[in-house]
Amino acid sequence: MTTGNEGKVTLVSAGPGDLDLLTLKAAKVLASADVVLLDDLVNPEIVTLAPQARVIRVGKRGGCRSTPQAFIERLMQRYARHGLHVVRVKGGDALLFGRAGEELAALRRAGVSVDIVNGVSSAFAAAAGLGVSLTHRDHCQGVIFVTAHLRDHSEPDWQALAATGMTLAIYMGMSRIESLCATLVGALPAATPAAVVQWAGSANERRVTGTLGSIAAHARAAGLGSPAIILVGNAIGEAASFANSPASFGVHSGIASIEDLRRRA
Amino acid sequence: MTTGNEGKVTLVSAGPGDLDLLTLKAAKVLASADVVLLDDLVNPEIVTLAPQARVIRVGKRGGCRSTPQAFIERLMQRYARHGLHVVRVKGGDALLFGRAGEELAALRRAGVSVDIVNGVSSAFAAAAGLGVSLTHRDHCQGVIFVTAHLRDHSEPDWQALAATGMTLAIYMGMSRIESLCATLVGALPAATPAAVVQWAGSANERRVTGTLGSIAAHARAAGLGSPAIILVGNAIGEAASFANSPASFGVHSGIASIEDLRRRA
Repeated sequence: MTTGNEGKVTLVSAGPGDLDLLTLKAAKVLASADVVLLDDLVNPEIVTLAPQARVIRVGKRGGCRSTPQAFIERLMQRYARHGLHVVRVKGGDALLFGRAGEELAALRRAGVSVDIVNGVSSAFAAAAGLGVSLTHRDHCQGVIFVTAHLRDHSEPDWQALAATGMTLAIYMGMSRIESLCATLVGALPAATPAAVVQWAGSANERRVTGTLGSIAAHARAAGLGSPAIILVGNAIGEAASFANSPASFGVHSGIASIEDLRRRA
Repeated sequence: MTTGNEGKVTLVSAGPGDLDLLTLKAAKVLASADVVLLDDLVNPEIVTLAPQARVIRVGKRGGCRSTPQAFIERLMQRYARHGLHVVRVKGGDALLFGRAGEELAALRRAGVSVDIVNGVSSAFAAAAGLGVSLTHRDHCQGVIFVTAHLRDHSEPDWQALAATGMTLAIYMGMSRIESLCATLVGALPAATPAAVVQWAGSANERRVTGTLGSIAAHARAAGLGSPAIILVGNAIGEAASFANSPASFGVHSGIASIEDLRRRA
């Protein structure tokens, strides 16, 4: 418990899954937590790093109904006002998707002080698994992180995204992978390299590689679903698996070391 | 030293500067390093985490001439072939800019096994300092990480990037901030919120906020230079500093806690 009545909230990024991908700072903050609010998609073993904390699961999966956002925000404020150190844990980096903006605004309005601890977003872990840079300079000048899951159920402007020539890292796109790839094929060559990485950066990571024209079918055939990152762009074609067999699919090991392969097995 | 003759290379992401923003995995890998190749912009204190390693600086700053890329690649291969664990350290996340793609390809051609350890890229740290989500869903569907420093000295297609409606996180843009903001003003309202964060996620972080039309002058007036991240987009307008004074500039503390302010002071 923090001294006096000075409670606070720390927004902690849990990274893609593997607890070793937490930052040192995240581990320190968790060790001092009085209350931990745990999002869905966060490795549940993270609570072992917060042995003194009361843990509250506020996830939206696992058969439970979603915890209303307003309730989560009130909960954080209430505990902080009681002088407690509240640690709000979000998957990946808390500042990419995941409604941190709304939670920060609510806490700010309530006068509760907040710290933010960054983390590894899952598209980076997906690229690591494939053994590729997201932005190989032979191919592009950057990368776009976009969510396919929009508030109003509309679509991102795939044409405009494709027109940038950048690598696309698509979050939350698995439920509509067929339609989004079909739309992208209108703007990019069907032969553009693509990959799907499910549970990137966690022990059960699975990957398929292919092309924009083939990747949806490959991912379905391999049984990949959410949560997964869809990567599209020529930079992704640098993955080792493409060198072996451009149209191959299956679970790849990328350029992982022998130790890494053993660990994944 | 690794057993037998099985050397390897691990590409380690050093994050934005603060050693506490290293991942647990990065710290473990550094502790087992025989040789550390250190990029420029990496906090030099990182070598304290690799007490047994021979440290080789291959940076491109500090008055020294750049170490040729081919030499760095040969060096890694040579040490790995001698059975050593070579740790190649890059700032931010190694898979965003920074030529990891070329180094991975060279090591793969040479048959050297490589692991990759992800990290926090500096645009995430910049957003944390400002206290904003990069992708507040009231404002955008994603974020673009783009380098302003192109191999052929050309410019990214700013019009196409602006047309996506996404937050822009511009790396290596400080030497041309005036011209790139002027170009973006042709495609986005001059009143679009913008920020510059120098040395994001390190002890000497400095921030200015303003608009696309004003940010270049604010950044120059505050004496900010490289390395810095330029953030542009309505999501950035959620920073606490905008609520206080939309056109303010100076070194902001965002929504940092009292502890954080003391630490930065």
